[in-house]
Amino acid sequence: MADQDPLVIFTPSGKRGRVAPGTRVLDAARALGVDLDSVCGRRGVCSKCQVAPSFGQHAKHGITVGEDALSPVNAVEERYDRVRGLKPGRRLGCQAEILADVVIDVPPESQVHKQVVRKRAEVRDIVLDPAVRLHYVEVAEPDMHKPEGDLERLLSALKAEMGLDALDFDFALLPDLQKTLRKEKWAVTAAIHTDGPATVIALWPGFHEGAYGLAVDIGSTTIAGHLTNLTTGEVVASSGLMNPQIRYGEDVMSRVSHAMMNEGGAAELTGAVREGLNGLIATLVAEAGISAGEILDSAFVMNPVMHHLFLGLDPYELGQAPFALATGAAQRLSAADLGLTALAPASRAYVLPLIAGHVGADAAAVALSEAPHKSDDLVLVVDVGTNAEILLGDKSGVLACSSPTGPAFEGAQISAGQRAAPGAIERVEIDPATKEPRFRVIGSDLWSDAPGFAAAIAGTGLTGICGSGIIEVMAEMRMAGIVDAKGLIGTAEETGTPRCIADGRTQSYVLWQGDETTPRITVTNADIRAIQMAKAALYAGARLLMDKRGVDHVDRVVLAGAFGAHISAKHAMVLGMIPDVPLDKVASAGNAAGTGARIALLNTGARAEIERVVHEVEKVETAIEPRFQEHFVAATALPNAADPFTGLRAVVPLPEPVFTGAGGEDGARRRRRRR
Amino acid sequence: MADQDPLVIFTPSGKRGRVAPGTRVLDAARALGVDLDSVCGRRGVCSKCQVAPSFGQHAKHGITVGEDALSPVNAVEERYDRVRGLKPGRRLGCQAEILADVVIDVPPESQVHKQVVRKRAEVRDIVLDPAVRLHYVEVAEPDMHKPEGDLERLLSALKAEMGLDALDFDFALLPDLQKTLRKEKWAVTAAIHTDGPATVIALWPGFHEGAYGLAVDIGSTTIAGHLTNLTTGEVVASSGLMNPQIRYGEDVMSRVSHAMMNEGGAAELTGAVREGLNGLIATLVAEAGISAGEILDSAFVMNPVMHHLFLGLDPYELGQAPFALATGAAQRLSAADLGLTALAPASRAYVLPLIAGHVGADAAAVALSEAPHKSDDLVLVVDVGTNAEILLGDKSGVLACSSPTGPAFEGAQISAGQRAAPGAIERVEIDPATKEPRFRVIGSDLWSDAPGFAAAIAGTGLTGICGSGIIEVMAEMRMAGIVDAKGLIGTAEETGTPRCIADGRTQSYVLWQGDETTPRITVTNADIRAIQMAKAALYAGARLLMDKRGVDHVDRVVLAGAFGAHISAKHAMVLGMIPDVPLDKVASAGNAAGTGARIALLNTGARAEIERVVHEVEKVETAIEPRFQEHFVAATALPNAADPFTGLRAVVPLPEPVFTGAGGEDGARRRRRRR
Repeated sequence: MADQDPLVIFTPSGKRGRVAPGTRVLDAARALGVDLDSVCGRRGVCSKCQVAPSFGQHAKHGITVGEDALSPVNAVEERYDRVRGLKPGRRLGCQAEILADVVIDVPPESQVHKQVVRKRAEVRDIVLDPAVRLHYVEVAEPDMHKPEGDLERLLSALKAEMGLDALDFDFALLPDLQKTLRKEKWAVTAAIHTDGPATVIALWPGFHEGAYGLAVDIGSTTIAGHLTNLTTGEVVASSGLMNPQIRYGEDVMSRVSHAMMNEGGAAELTGAVREGLNGLIATLVAEAGISAGEILDSAFVMNPVMHHLFLGLDPYELGQAPFALATGAAQRLSAADLGLTALAPASRAYVLPLIAGHVGADAAAVALSEAPHKSDDLVLVVDVGTNAEILLGDKSGVLACSSPTGPAFEGAQISAGQRAAPGAIERVEIDPATKEPRFRVIGSDLWSDAPGFAAAIAGTGLTGICGSGIIEVMAEMRMAGIVDAKGLIGTAEETGTPRCIADGRTQSYVLWQGDETTPRITVTNADIRAIQMAKAALYAGARLLMDKRGVDHVDRVVLAGAFGAHISAKHAMVLGMIPDVPLDKVASAGNAAGTGARIALLNTGARAEIERVVHEVEKVETAIEPRFQEHFVAATALPNAADPFTGLRAVVPLPEPVFTGAGGEDGARRRRRRR
Repeated sequence: MADQDPLVIFTPSGKRGRVAPGTRVLDAARALGVDLDSVCGRRGVCSKCQVAPSFGQHAKHGITVGEDALSPVNAVEERYDRVRGLKPGRRLGCQAEILADVVIDVPPESQVHKQVVRKRAEVRDIVLDPAVRLHYVEVAEPDMHKPEGDLERLLSALKAEMGLDALDFDFALLPDLQKTLRKEKWAVTAAIHTDGPATVIALWPGFHEGAYGLAVDIGSTTIAGHLTNLTTGEVVASSGLMNPQIRYGEDVMSRVSHAMMNEGGAAELTGAVREGLNGLIATLVAEAGISAGEILDSAFVMNPVMHHLFLGLDPYELGQAPFALATGAAQRLSAADLGLTALAPASRAYVLPLIAGHVGADAAAVALSEAPHKSDDLVLVVDVGTNAEILLGDKSGVLACSSPTGPAFEGAQISAGQRAAPGAIERVEIDPATKEPRFRVIGSDLWSDAPGFAAAIAGTGLTGICGSGIIEVMAEMRMAGIVDAKGLIGTAEETGTPRCIADGRTQSYVLWQGDETTPRITVTNADIRAIQMAKAALYAGARLLMDKRGVDHVDRVVLAGAFGAHISAKHAMVLGMIPDVPLDKVASAGNAAGTGARIALLNTGARAEIERVVHEVEKVETAIEPRFQEHFVAATALPNAADPFTGLRAVVPLPEPVFTGAGGEDGARRRRRRR
């Protein structure tokens, strides 16, 4: 462009250049590589290209922008303002022409690649770049002199609009094509999926705006879905349901057994999860008040057994070494392939890649959310469930394994254990001098020694201890000298508190005496054992990865998952669940798997990223690593028999009594034998 | 390669080059671009790479080939010979090593791109290059240290074997993958479809050989299928059935009406044709003694209404101007998309492109078979059915139209008309002096004036006149001066034969008097009228294309279709059905649409070719061309009122009587009025 041509400066990008006078703002933006949205093909219908010219002096840029820098508001803009309303100072970029030097602000909602802000400081925002976008187009009418099909004319119009060489059309849409085209006089809005060969996957008559996607985490216990607006990144509805497969078995292995032992068992499980998903989708659609046909894309994460059952694959091989996956690669499918009849058949689905036979797409999603492969420092990411998925790495590489922690962390195998629900003890403190406990119950903010506690819990009752509660009480018992490093609860005599009572051959600690409305709640030595086994498996997995990496410490720890969100870092470390790092280096990531699914839904590049990361991850199979057993044995101690946990010991009292662990008749007998 | 390296010369290609001593013949062939097949990946299992070394002196090539030019027969070849047998002198190209100068013959069956010979001199052979090929491969077993999925290891092996960068896997195969891989110790044969992104579409344990395809012509009346071996090009079974849609209407327009008038009518018609096809497939599979799972690909041709109904599209728009197709483009689908439940769901289907709203994929297939776009001289290709599809062109370009001939050529609307079946008159001669006819009947070789005729037709009876018979009798009547150029049958008095009898207001010609076992068969003036209308439509279409092309003659004529195969060129030309060309320039192409389907099935390049040709064809819509009517009126005359047919007249007597056309009471009255 010539020197005398108007200079246009776009903010916030700062991109600038000279354009011929009369150039439309949208065209200038395209020419200068400015991220300015447009769906309706310059027809002044969608208003996605709204911009705000900045008049007056711009000392920073050395220009003054006059009121006549842009062409006057035209008829199309007037109509839009009249019908749908335009904010003051806004112009339609597809209508306004640049006549003189101008500074033009692109507001966030007009950017294609908007940022979806995440709250936690340490994680990246999600850049909106979904696999599906809407495009409004006007199609040439049929012409007997040039007898091209309706589809061919639609695709020509879309290709011209989008500058595409090739564009496919989902066969499932073909039966409705001719009616849709004729409904609003050959104007239609097409949804185009570009993660793979560009394909039209939905079509509406006239101008259409709604475009939604689903991010789904299919857990063994719970299925959680987030309905997300693909244009804004906003979650418009969230819902969860119990995985209907539970009726065939609580954990994944019992479901694999069901599939192995029963003819058609795998198909039953597939049917159950798909039926559950269809119900979940109906719930989300109703909650958001949208049409199911507006759900254009989905991203799914799950463990390998859930993955195979969801895809309609028999999980038989996952039940036995060498745990061969039918496929671990990311899947790009349609709703029809997955039996998701609640969605339009051409709606797309992306299933994140599995990492290994025991390390699922949920772990891949955690990696996408927490990005260990982009970390400057060495980070350990732990997602605790019935299996713990463990990632260790930094920019130079990532290792992964899973470790069979069992259901103890979820309150199973614990005498007073229960799921996290109102009435469950979730926080515990024990006075190291008096050994007296106090606690808090889900549903109340009062500690148990506060006035009014009894009244406060009258509604919920006091029913048991949830997973985070059991971690806390056990760690507090360790710090108060009630349980020793081997995990034995001392006798009343050894600990000096009558709360330690003989219970068969071992001791139990009475956390709550109970009364006419509440049960007595104790921590038994069997409870301690169960947690020891679980946490030893978790720690041994992490330690194995550290071995492979050749390190004996990590820089930080991220606890992912619902459980990770609720446990206290200090208590977890006292038990030796996680390696010894400064307490402020332990963060909770919340539902990182769900977040990872949402990232994969909203950003196509993230799909390629996680596929690359999963391919490059060094997979470690704990079952065949001899050192795993060794680490496991050391990790049964509290915190650990091999690793010193010196950092932890500097900030937390860890007395080292040695208990006989026996009480009552049995204990007395044993004590006698030892002498 | 160095000069002292052995020289290898392949015949019949003549390709030659030096290779390092010890190079296997197959590798040498690949390096030199010689077309040598191999399915089993050099494992000596498939024998597709069989070659015949040619020992002794080769003066032509200036070399002498010693017995030791190839390595001795090895254990793999011995095993193959023992188990499956190897022809004398044959070697396995994947085993035999080149040690010295050698001439190696690649027999036709070892070439990937075999020629499938067509009988007619004027057409090209089909080069075998199908969209689906089999590949045998051995897959790495699962490894816990490198936990890739079974699918990923299968695809890696296939990609390495075939030198592919990318390979997809049909999702429908995934549920059986793990069992198939384990059945024959990780050896499998994969069918890979390459018309589009390379995709595995079938998988068998171990080594598998059967690969078949279907070529199907879905006519309004008859559906014909040819089951074809994709490795040899051979048709292994053919079968046909009445289109079950007939119960909803005889012709396409009555079926469009059924779809328009009845809720769900289009779906009923779709269901009917798909059900018919599934039955046809079952018949073909049984006849050939193969498994339906071995049918890997199909090619379909049909008219536009059949096309839409087969694809599940409402033909509503095809029932009215502007006759807009939902889509006319070639379709690449799966059996599952088309409801072809008799096939494996991943089996592929190719639907040839439509040319226009009235010119179907059957016409495209005729173009593929007859290749007017490759013709040096100007050829008119006519496929006669209820609609006539007409192509005119040469290397410089092709025009196409369809013309509504109606069902008269098929024997409908003719008083004694019937389908071509035993008992129908198919050949007629009339003595120009005596006006006496003789004829032949389908099912007998005797003329009606031969001794023993009555006995010969006793089995079949004498039931009517088929389409080719009506053309002949009418043309013979014209040549014998029984019918005049306007199509009027003369009276007995005008023609001098008592076979012309008054029949209401017009005359009829008695072709057969009838007796106790056979009916009287006459040709009425209404029959003549019906054929005049039909042939005028046909000729007017052809003439319109000639106008567009700016010519008043064509170099040759090809008659396609069952009807075209049976009519005599001379008789057709006497009636003026086709333009005036030397009689030896009229050829019959037989079932050219079916042949075109088979070409598209067997040669992927032909698909691209016909898509290009269809795109480039100049489509002419007869309904909106004013000159069509003018040509039609002139063409009602026999042969034509405007075009002179001088070539025809030079070889055939065309007397020019002018009849009153009336006889009996009416005729006498009319004759009186005229005076």
